Amino acid sequence: MQGFELIRDMAVNTPSKIVLLVIDGLGGLPDPATGKTELEMAYTPNLDRLAHMGSCGLTRPVGPGITPGSAPGHLGLFGYNPVTYNIGRGVLEALGIDFELKPGDVAARGNFCTIDTQGAITDRRAGRISTEESTVLCQKLDGQEIDGVQFVVLPVKEHRFILVLRGAGLDARLADTDPQRLGALPLATASLVPEAGRTADIVNEFLRRGATLLADSHPANMLLLRGFSERPAFPNFGEIYRLNPAAIASYPMYRGLARVLGMNVLPTDLEILDEIATLRRDYEAYDFFFMHVKGADAAGEDGDFARKIAVIEEVDRALPEIMALAPDVLVVAGDHSTPAVIKGHSWHDVPCLIFSKWCRPDGLPKFGETFCRGGSLGIMDATALMPLAMAHAQKLTKYGA
Amino acid sequence: MQGFELIRDMAVNTPSKIVLLVIDGLGGLPDPATGKTELEMAYTPNLDRLAHMGSCGLTRPVGPGITPGSAPGHLGLFGYNPVTYNIGRGVLEALGIDFELKPGDVAARGNFCTIDTQGAITDRRAGRISTEESTVLCQKLDGQEIDGVQFVVLPVKEHRFILVLRGAGLDARLADTDPQRLGALPLATASLVPEAGRTADIVNEFLRRGATLLADSHPANMLLLRGFSERPAFPNFGEIYRLNPAAIASYPMYRGLARVLGMNVLPTDLEILDEIATLRRDYEAYDFFFMHVKGADAAGEDGDFARKIAVIEEVDRALPEIMALAPDVLVVAGDHSTPAVIKGHSWHDVPCLIFSKWCRPDGLPKFGETFCRGGSLGIMDATALMPLAMAHAQKLTKYGA
Repeated sequence: MQGFELIRDMAVNTPSKIVLLVIDGLGGLPDPATGKTELEMAYTPNLDRLAHMGSCGLTRPVGPGITPGSAPGHLGLFGYNPVTYNIGRGVLEALGIDFELKPGDVAARGNFCTIDTQGAITDRRAGRISTEESTVLCQKLDGQEIDGVQFVVLPVKEHRFILVLRGAGLDARLADTDPQRLGALPLATASLVPEAGRTADIVNEFLRRGATLLADSHPANMLLLRGFSERPAFPNFGEIYRLNPAAIASYPMYRGLARVLGMNVLPTDLEILDEIATLRRDYEAYDFFFMHVKGADAAGEDGDFARKIAVIEEVDRALPEIMALAPDVLVVAGDHSTPAVIKGHSWHDVPCLIFSKWCRPDGLPKFGETFCRGGSLGIMDATALMPLAMAHAQKLTKYGA
Repeated sequence: MQGFELIRDMAVNTPSKIVLLVIDGLGGLPDPATGKTELEMAYTPNLDRLAHMGSCGLTRPVGPGITPGSAPGHLGLFGYNPVTYNIGRGVLEALGIDFELKPGDVAARGNFCTIDTQGAITDRRAGRISTEESTVLCQKLDGQEIDGVQFVVLPVKEHRFILVLRGAGLDARLADTDPQRLGALPLATASLVPEAGRTADIVNEFLRRGATLLADSHPANMLLLRGFSERPAFPNFGEIYRLNPAAIASYPMYRGLARVLGMNVLPTDLEILDEIATLRRDYEAYDFFFMHVKGADAAGEDGDFARKIAVIEEVDRALPEIMALAPDVLVVAGDHSTPAVIKGHSWHDVPCLIFSKWCRPDGLPKFGETFCRGGSLGIMDATALMPLAMAHAQKLTKYGA
């Protein structure tokens, strides 16, 4: 799929409804003891029935061998090539605490760090101070104004915070100030293009003031900034697909990402049943629903094979409540694999299924990595999933005569 | 395959022969009663033997989720990326009635329509007047000349006709005149680029005259024009692949498309046995044959599951006559799916097989959607088929040393 022109030209608005259920970190690797993955070990009669009656395959999130972060993993599922549509780290960190970035804001990810009397870095994470301590320090830095630019500093977790610059004429093309090694001095930022010169000067004045304000706060007596970036101007999801989309996600990063794409973000609580209650309540108002389940990824990151199974089984038990709404198309997918045996994201392809009246039924006995590899969707770029979902919802007209 | 440079550099002319048998609309969806598609239900011992001894797979005509028209579906099979190589609707309609467009001609698709006394459209299809009535009206409009430009108007079917402008300095970048809704006035055309200004003026004068000429022909008392386009200058098929290609197709659109690619179009009658007689007669003169079978698509469009089966079985019965010629490579493919349960083209991948001395035999028990999905060709872009056919005919040299 090259750009969105083709899909935008063919998309038509219809009453049919699509539910995209993303089980974060769905893909796994076998437990050596059983030879089966988390999903293959899970008791999932409802998913298995959909795999039997629907079309299955494996999605490749970014490219062969590429392990995606959560943002690129999701962008792919939404049909945005994650290499073309890149989101800066500062912006992601801001989305992750539900901070609403405005166009023109520049965000950076910050770390408190420890420097010695010579100014050299002795701990890049300031001994991982508590979020409470960090909050106090952020308040010291927050609210400044330099040359008409407002500085917002908000805690994230432990030594991590976000910095947002708000004002006219800012430019995010700035170098990191973290030298990434101990014994080095924190750097001043540098403008990567001449247009960012003023912003660099302003940030460097903020760093000077910060050094003074933090001087007595050992071990968090200095700060490092990375990933200066602006809220990206991505094509609007609803306009591309001619959908009225809603996002049902309890974690801030996913809500933030959905907001960047122009989705309507619905209020919801954490549990899958809360999310389904939201889906049910607002089912008539929208024609596309992105539902996000975080627990499988978190369990995988923790290396907790059994808990990842339990999360998948919980989703499976809740599935009939989604099916009861009879969406025209249900897609079950993952943004990437998070094998418990790796304790982190991985590059492995991710099982997916499409269930609709118009799918070619694969007759698979079970939903899982091994069977999906033989499904009729094959192994495909994750970006193929949205055009397929649209086609199965009969929301795409014919290409050419 | 990116562009044709690579294939053109590697292609060599050899005596080996390739037959590409296209069963239009071959792919299907299961009949809910049996769980089997048209092709899977058909008794096809000859195709099944080829699927057993040959290499099988599924072709994706344009892209995931994209339902192609017949022209893009065929362009893909011929190795032309259907998105890059786009043919306008006016040109397709002209090809469809065997009208030979010359370079520089501008073609448009026309509809007779009904307007009321205020000039507002009350029926965009003029009550679907008969082809006979339409022919008389076309004769009224045909043969005019405006500013040195000749106007050709020929009936297609019922209310549909083609308009061709022939003359120097024409430009097809013109807007449709069909407002696509009732109650609106027919539009004048507008030039989409300044260079098309004169052509727009000429077309608008034709529309004014047409309104007068048709004034007394209620319900066909006005005309609408769409899809202004020129015969595209596509790379020559024979030159790309170093083949001397022949097309054996009984429907005008496919003959016209083959002509646009520079294939030799052989005279033939409608039935598969007629086409095979043509193949036999001219077998020595060419090294590539595109054979087209229309019936499966037509049956699918009509929602006639049983007739689609019958067409496929008819092809199967005729297959030994093709095999008796012992082509070095036989490819059996479809331009797209036309599931009888959808009654129209669809986006679903299409079964294909390559049979040659040099293929990896898949040992499949039957030719059909389900088994092909596990074949050694995998799920591939339709544009991959020609390079594979060329390779199996030993018409491609090694890439690199």
